[in-house]
Formats: sequence, C-alpha cells, structure tokens
Amino acid sequence: MSTRRDFLHLTAAATAVGALAGQAAAQAPASGSGRPIPLAGGDALRLVTFIPSAGSSPRVGAVRTDGRVVDLTSASVPDIDPTRMISLIEAGPKALDAVRRAAATSDGPQIETVRLLAPIPAPTRNIYAVGWNYLEHFAEGQAARDTKTEYPAHPVFFTKGVNTVNGPYDPIPYDPEVSTAIDWEAELAVIIGTPGRNIPEAEAMSHVFGYTVINDTTARDMQHKLHGGQWFKGKSVDGHGPIGPWIVPAEDLDATDLRLTTRVNGVVKQDASTKQMYFKVGRIIAELSRGLTLMPGDIIATGTPPGVGNARKPPEYLKPGDVMETEIAGIGTLRNLIQAIPA
Amino acid sequence: MSTRRDFLHLTAAATAVGALAGQAAAQAPASGSGRPIPLAGGDALRLVTFIPSAGSSPRVGAVRTDGRVVDLTSASVPDIDPTRMISLIEAGPKALDAVRRAAATSDGPQIETVRLLAPIPAPTRNIYAVGWNYLEHFAEGQAARDTKTEYPAHPVFFTKGVNTVNGPYDPIPYDPEVSTAIDWEAELAVIIGTPGRNIPEAEAMSHVFGYTVINDTTARDMQHKLHGGQWFKGKSVDGHGPIGPWIVPAEDLDATDLRLTTRVNGVVKQDASTKQMYFKVGRIIAELSRGLTLMPGDIIATGTPPGVGNARKPPEYLKPGDVMETEIAGIGTLRNLIQAIPA
Repeated sequence: MSTRRDFLHLTAAATAVGALAGQAAAQAPASGSGRPIPLAGGDALRLVTFIPSAGSSPRVGAVRTDGRVVDLTSASVPDIDPTRMISLIEAGPKALDAVRRAAATSDGPQIETVRLLAPIPAPTRNIYAVGWNYLEHFAEGQAARDTKTEYPAHPVFFTKGVNTVNGPYDPIPYDPEVSTAIDWEAELAVIIGTPGRNIPEAEAMSHVFGYTVINDTTARDMQHKLHGGQWFKGKSVDGHGPIGPWIVPAEDLDATDLRLTTRVNGVVKQDASTKQMYFKVGRIIAELSRGLTLMPGDIIATGTPPGVGNARKPPEYLKPGDVMETEIAGIGTLRNLIQAIPA
Repeated sequence: MSTRRDFLHLTAAATAVGALAGQAAAQAPASGSGRPIPLAGGDALRLVTFIPSAGSSPRVGAVRTDGRVVDLTSASVPDIDPTRMISLIEAGPKALDAVRRAAATSDGPQIETVRLLAPIPAPTRNIYAVGWNYLEHFAEGQAARDTKTEYPAHPVFFTKGVNTVNGPYDPIPYDPEVSTAIDWEAELAVIIGTPGRNIPEAEAMSHVFGYTVINDTTARDMQHKLHGGQWFKGKSVDGHGPIGPWIVPAEDLDATDLRLTTRVNGVVKQDASTKQMYFKVGRIIAELSRGLTLMPGDIIATGTPPGVGNARKPPEYLKPGDVMETEIAGIGTLRNLIQAIPA
C-alpha cells in the first residue's frame, strides 16, 4: 500500500521515467555521466527545477554564470512557492527581480553535482505543439509520405501528453513493443507568462515568460499509421519529450534567430535557425489563443526544422544506446540516452 | 495585483467559465434555473464536486437517492483530501467504502440548492478522446466530408484541452469571432482509477474507477478547415466540454448497454446505445496505454454516436439561447445553455 501511494504522489513525469527507466535512472547525477554541462546564454538568467541530492525534493533554482545553482528555497523571493516553477512564473516581474538579486549574491552547489529535472516537471495540461512550421520540414514530410497537401494557412496544432515530460539529461525509455520508429525533432519551446484568450498578434509577445529547448521525440509508426491520422498518440510515448535544461526569461533573449541543432551520437542531423519558422511566435500565440485561454506555465513547442530521421533515405530511427543531443544557441543543450526497458 | 492573483488561483475550469460567461454564471445556483435535477442510477453512488453556497470553496460529496448531498469535508473518510476528487480516486476501495457509509448515515443540503462543478474540475492533463467510435457516426462524417477513408484498425485518439472542462449545468460560452459551427457530441466518459501502462485488454476494466457523461462540444470549422487536419484546436474551445453531473463507480454500473441521448431545445438529436461502440472500453484502454501511463483521474471520452449537427442536411449548429441536454441512462443528464459572450 505504501508503495502504491508513493507511486501516486510522484509527479507524472517522475512516475513515467521512474517506472520505465528504473530507479537507477531516477537517481542518476545531473549530467548522467558527470560530464561538464555547457552554460549557454552568457549573463542570461537560467531557471531550473532541480534535486540537490538523492532523496531530497525538487525545488526551483537559478544557475549562475559560474555554474553555481542558487536554491530558491533558501533565498528570499516573496510570493512564490520555491518548489514550483509555475508559482514563480505566475508571480510576475517583481519575483523575477528578486531571483536575479538572489542569483547575484548567493552561492550554491556546482551544477554537475545536482540532478536537473524538466524546468516544469508537471505541467497543468498537455504541451501545445505546432506541426509543419519550417517549410523545408513540411516538404520533406510530403516526400516521405508521398501525399499532396497544401501548406496550411493556419498553424497545425496538436498536443503531447504530460507523460512525455522528461529531464534534460535523463534516459528516454525505448520499448520495441511500443515503437521501433523513434525520431528526433528539435524545437524552441515558448513558456507562457501572463494568461490570455483571443490575444492579438501585436500583443502576443508580452505574454511570453521565456524560452527553453524541447525535443518532440516521436513514434513515427504510431503517428502515421495506427491512429487514423491524428498525431497525439505517436507524439505521447512516456518520457519522449525531454525539455530544459532551464528556462531563459524573454527579457534576456531574442529568440528570432537562434541556431537549433540535433546530433545523434555526435553526428549533426538537424541544423537550422528559428528565423526559418513559417509562423512566428506571436502568430502562433494569437492563433492558439483563439477561444482557448492560455495560462502561466503553458508550454508551446513551435515546430521542427528539416533533418528528421523519417524523411531520410533510407529512414533513420533512434535505437538503444544512441545519444541524442538537442541544442539551441543562447539557451542550452539536452543530452539523452536512448535506453531499452526494462533497464 | 490582487485581481490578477485571484484570477490565477482559480482552477483552469473556473477561470474559463468565470472569465467567459461572466460572474453571474459563475455564481448561479446548481441547476441554473432552480429546476429539479433528475437522479438517474437508483442506488448507485453519485460522486460530485460542489460548492454549497456562493463564496464557499469546492469540495467532494455524495448525492443520496433522496437528493441530499453529503459533504465529505464533514464526513470521516480516511486518507483523502475531501476537496479533491482525484485524491478519493487515488485512495482506492477502502475510501470508497467509507464514502458509502457516510452517504448512508449523514444528511446534507438538497442538490438543487448547491452548485455542481465538473466532478474533476481541474484534470491533471488533457481529456483523452476517441474519434469515429460508432460506425454510423463514421459513415455520416464521411458523407459530410465527401472523402473516402478506411475505418481505422485502431482507435483514433486526440485530446481536448483542460480549458474545455465545464460544469453540468453551466452555460457554454458562444463567441462568433471564434466559431459559428458549434456541434454536439454525447459521449460516455471513463474515469481511470489505478495507474497502468501497456495494460492488457483482458485486465483493462480493473483500471476503471467509474463513469460520467461528457459532451465533446466541437467547433467544426476549426476542426476540419483551419488547422491542417489535426482536431485538437476545434475540440478545445473554452468551456466546450461540459461533464458530470457526477461519477458513478464502475462497481455500481454496467456501462456496456446504456442509452445516450442528446436533445437541443427538447428535440432529440442523438439516440443510441453504448453497445454500438466499435472499440469497447477495454480495447480503448489497452490501446491508449501502449507506451503511455494512465493515471488516476484521467478522463477518456469514448466517442459519439450518429446524429451530430454537422452531418445533417442542411447542417445544424448550436446558437445562443439553445439548451443542449446530454443524457446517459443510469448516470445522469447535463443541461447547458449556449450563451453569447460577453454575457
């Protein structure tokens, strides 16, 4: 009985990873292999959710330029619950200023010694996602599917389940009974700050709290063949959505021309710029919020550039033992091992 | 500032309805018009989330056969948070037995004097939904779309946003700037009890906590024309997912042959039985849980029978002032006014 209750009290994300990749993975150190974590973004604020040591509970922190992680449960940031990133996002600019002051004046453990979780380990709803948002990716998909579809006049929206949320350095569970066509999709993720509905495109950027990196890891066989053309199921395998390593506030980052890269075992597979996005962030927010209230902490994956495995000839898919790295310049890099289950 | 924080601290569901339909709607009495609430289900347990009077906070209750609502914050049910239905679902059979004892021995206000919310006002992830699950509805959709598609060999899955969750007697906001093609879809909703992944079909029914009624209210123009064939956006307009009035535990109800009815302004539009479902509940759970961990309190809308407005000749859509009733025999009836916004 206590086992069942413990299980239930974990976050959905931790549950998925813990149940699938085994306890070893759940208790691994931050970087998975102790390797140095590159700190992109210069003086930008980097907001993390982390566990300082095995057995301790998650809390929010700020990663300093020297690699020290300032624990917000020990800093004085008014009006937030320092164990919940969404409460910091909700609290607004004053709380963020207080975090900046704490980061400037406090110390903490070196980032390689803590375990980073997804910045928002348990989103309050599914991740919003945009399909076909880089023209070259739309074209490569058409060729792979051998279909003719007009490029949409409006963004294509679908969702990824909360169960996909995974840490920036955690293994991605691989179950051949579920899929043998797991593909990479590097994407810029937008974090909503202020709520809104029917948001005009001209005001949309004021609703952005910040940015992070997501890999919209996809089971292509489920996406295309099994479920009548709706993408949700193939986009929602447990742990198939690593995200992080941190959120960079929008005031610290111009995301209109950032280089995105995916590497598999060190080989570059995707290499593009966010300036190639067909629907820009403001337009996406305006369209998504039509009749749909966006809330603080909502995550929007903005689509992937060309270079996915499914469109290659012959197609390439991830297999156990592969290491997938997803990088956005100015934000940071995800590094995830593909790991057969049971571990 | 206090206004902003109050707004943010409401549940997503309450936010959507409060912001859209106006405070009058948010504070309306239970039935909207004080009319008697029919109690289907005989001696079955009916689990509600309710507000006893204006200004009080939501809590979980049990509706007795005499129409009295027993407040679980005043009953002794061990190991649950009586303000959260999901905590009761997580707690398992002993807690449910304690609720039965409380319902048998305690008293409470008459149901027409309280305000019922959705039984799970803030699900922890989007609502899972099945498309094309009654053959006749699949056929009528093909005729309406003038396309040829083979009936899927696996269920079609998509999601409805958490922002769609609406109370059983609350108004559904109607915004002609968002959609003028709002359609009805009566569906049996399954509530997951015990977590699981890769659940075998033969064991699937043991993961069901109970059943409720949902209307998968849909913006057809958004669903079919605007977003590249992915249904999520058209299925996810704020408040377009009334659910309830209560959850009936699976041990109290055989859901394999229940009559579903939709009436608009008293005129029957859909009239079918759950026995016509193509993929039965066990198969749906087995397929959905492939690689995807289902959690306690997850909601699965199991698809709609024929008779939707979009397939009629000429097509029929809901308009402000219409009253949509969604009934499943043995569970209960939703009654929702379509209300133009701003109210």
